[in-house]
Amino acid sequence: MRTPTETHPVPEHVAAALDELTRALPAGRLLTDPDVLSSYRTDRAPDLRAGTPAAVVRVRSTGEVQQVMRAATRHRVPVVPRGAGAGLHGGSNAVDDGIVLSMEAMTSILDVDPADRLCEVEPGIMNLALKEELAVDGLWYAPDPASMAFCSIGGNVATNAGGLCCLKYGVTRDWVAGLEVVLADGRVIETGSRTIKSVAGYDLTSLIVGSEGTLGVVTRARLRIRPLPPPASTLVAFFGDLGDAGRAVVEICEGEPPALLEIMDASTIRAVEEWQRMDLDTDAAALLLMRSDVAVDRSGHVAAMEEICARHGATFVARTDDPDEGEAFLQARRLALPAVERHGVALLEDVGVPRSQVPALLASTGRIAEHRGTEIYSYGHAGDGNMHPTLRWDHDDADGKARAMQAFDDILEAALALGGTVTGEHGVGLLKEQWLPREIGADAMDVQQAIKDALDPAGILNPGKMALRLR
Amino acid sequence: MRTPTETHPVPEHVAAALDELTRALPAGRLLTDPDVLSSYRTDRAPDLRAGTPAAVVRVRSTGEVQQVMRAATRHRVPVVPRGAGAGLHGGSNAVDDGIVLSMEAMTSILDVDPADRLCEVEPGIMNLALKEELAVDGLWYAPDPASMAFCSIGGNVATNAGGLCCLKYGVTRDWVAGLEVVLADGRVIETGSRTIKSVAGYDLTSLIVGSEGTLGVVTRARLRIRPLPPPASTLVAFFGDLGDAGRAVVEICEGEPPALLEIMDASTIRAVEEWQRMDLDTDAAALLLMRSDVAVDRSGHVAAMEEICARHGATFVARTDDPDEGEAFLQARRLALPAVERHGVALLEDVGVPRSQVPALLASTGRIAEHRGTEIYSYGHAGDGNMHPTLRWDHDDADGKARAMQAFDDILEAALALGGTVTGEHGVGLLKEQWLPREIGADAMDVQQAIKDALDPAGILNPGKMALRLR
Repeated sequence: MRTPTETHPVPEHVAAALDELTRALPAGRLLTDPDVLSSYRTDRAPDLRAGTPAAVVRVRSTGEVQQVMRAATRHRVPVVPRGAGAGLHGGSNAVDDGIVLSMEAMTSILDVDPADRLCEVEPGIMNLALKEELAVDGLWYAPDPASMAFCSIGGNVATNAGGLCCLKYGVTRDWVAGLEVVLADGRVIETGSRTIKSVAGYDLTSLIVGSEGTLGVVTRARLRIRPLPPPASTLVAFFGDLGDAGRAVVEICEGEPPALLEIMDASTIRAVEEWQRMDLDTDAAALLLMRSDVAVDRSGHVAAMEEICARHGATFVARTDDPDEGEAFLQARRLALPAVERHGVALLEDVGVPRSQVPALLASTGRIAEHRGTEIYSYGHAGDGNMHPTLRWDHDDADGKARAMQAFDDILEAALALGGTVTGEHGVGLLKEQWLPREIGADAMDVQQAIKDALDPAGILNPGKMALRLR
Repeated sequence: MRTPTETHPVPEHVAAALDELTRALPAGRLLTDPDVLSSYRTDRAPDLRAGTPAAVVRVRSTGEVQQVMRAATRHRVPVVPRGAGAGLHGGSNAVDDGIVLSMEAMTSILDVDPADRLCEVEPGIMNLALKEELAVDGLWYAPDPASMAFCSIGGNVATNAGGLCCLKYGVTRDWVAGLEVVLADGRVIETGSRTIKSVAGYDLTSLIVGSEGTLGVVTRARLRIRPLPPPASTLVAFFGDLGDAGRAVVEICEGEPPALLEIMDASTIRAVEEWQRMDLDTDAAALLLMRSDVAVDRSGHVAAMEEICARHGATFVARTDDPDEGEAFLQARRLALPAVERHGVALLEDVGVPRSQVPALLASTGRIAEHRGTEIYSYGHAGDGNMHPTLRWDHDDADGKARAMQAFDDILEAALALGGTVTGEHGVGLLKEQWLPREIGADAMDVQQAIKDALDPAGILNPGKMALRLR
């Protein structure tokens, strides 16, 4: 891969495409400044391959996306669609001499329809910005990745992003009613329906959601919305033993689903507390964060969770019905990754296991950390079995990095052995390219490849991602 | 199309495939008796084209399905997968000289895992049989097509079947965690995961669900289950005006979702009452059936619905917390189709509109009945905007049939004009083949065709369905 500082002539066919686009697009859309190109090379995942694009195109309309894709098809130029660059798996890393198709300027809310509980947005709008706009009218779009302040709806759609509340409310796919998609050759299709149910043809919406920009470019999303849930009660419980916390998770989820159920282990608690002074118990082995937003008889739901935590040996349990106080606890959880990142390179896992296997995964992760002599910060969406054990090494510690990478593989192995998945919500991108075939098998990979080839015969859309072959 | 009584030599390549299968499969699997062949020609939709198969193969294992598909691929013989034949859109109608691949003997429940809320079943098991087995352990698989006593899980998966409770609990796709699928060439893949969330690759599960046997043969389904909901309260309300009932539907759905919300119009009420004597008010213009299974403070939810019905002019409102009594009211709704069928040929629509447009659809349907001079029985899942206006004509009334068919088209036109869909839960099959392209457009049809060709390059899987081209 080239670095942006190497001087390198843009190949002729790419230059031809850029010339065409320069003429066709309004001024300022097509950027080739080396500093700009450099800043669009990677997402937030450390240490994955990334090329240097020939251009970044910051589109402002579906028509402009069509022009880019037509030119790219004509000249066989790779196109990497990109949202806010908040990905954690290299899914939007650039490729050499390709075009980065940035959707960040397309941020409009096109329609809000409270009667049919739908809204239509452009893909560049930030998840949190949409939530805030909707909240003004008492409406809600549920999916809430921890990165919601700086991740876009388009990126959420591309990765089928999860979050904290998806335990009760589902993931991005459950909230997408339909999409406008520009195909590789520049044609536009609309998927889905305005109705609650439709079986009119193959479910192209679900296919595009989670396809990481390899099948088409999402230029508009019709999202389901609903009234804001009632104010939530938040429950925090500290445990002296990580296994106890894991077992409490399993039992809590046997009842009425909490609106979220997060876990942080000792090292994560300490990393956050050290940074932010939130009065977390740094002697605890685990912290569980739970929420209930069941309006009627809310206390009963929270009391049941309290009782389970106590019975599983919680050393401290506290409940708050104050939204700000509850939000502060959640903030502790959202700070987990930046807290670890302060001390070196942080590489997040994103494994999922069947919920009953959460205690086993926590135990495995501990053994792996010890065996590999590496630091692992375990936290995540315990309630749906989706954990983000995070590996840390010093910036200049090659040996530490090597040990961390071994631990990374060990955790994936452990998750698969427990009947799990190698990615619960971040996606395959580049980070899991060796692992996707191991999880789904060669024949299912063939099917994925066949679909990719059918929708993108020239192989220009985000090439080399999701363990798909280059053409 | 041939009729089964015509003598017709089986074409040579088909005979070769059947010879192979006769040798390879256990005795009794491959059936060629003309009466048997005749009984597998159609599903429950009246008057659609149906061929006469060369053989019916009643498989008993995934391995046997693989053998059928390998032989079919080798000899280019069309294969129509078939569940219980309960479809309403011709999706499993046979094709001449093809194989009907009957899954009806594969009825096992392979696993029930209450901890992770999953079960695994073979596709031939009836929906209701599965429900009854699970209920013994207090567990529940939600989707409940009106035909649940005689429709199979495999058929439900093939059509992404809905039902009454999907207003609150979602459709079949929401309850399928993964599938075992035999591909056109006989290879087997597993889709999905045992975890709650996974983004490992394209969502093949959602693609196969609703693909009507055109992309692969489902040989095992991993379904989500949950604890049985608490006992429900059932509310019935009669209205003197159909529009009032429609407006009540819209307002009820603005609050906490009911567990079901069904509507029957005057002619449907009368058809059911005439047949079964259930003390329904035959002077009413509409009947709404509602259910709440919110356990805590259940009365509040039901009372809110009662109040809305009263405010919209309901002439009679009654509530029962007695499960048997509640079930009797539901039975009235489930009898709608057979009640109409007693008096001639009944052709169900399956249109969906955005919920806010339910009153408009009801009004349009009334105008269409009048304009075309035909009988339309309107009933359906009003709460999710999925209506089944049913056209009736006398068996020997060619003119009545012609008028009904015009009304059929008018209703589809009206649904599309209201932002709706031509099929909410029954599927495209043959019945909607002219309408699918009108709803989704030529470019989205091209995408569907490309996916079909990618997964079934020889075009042998349920050819000619879902508006896909024959190869």
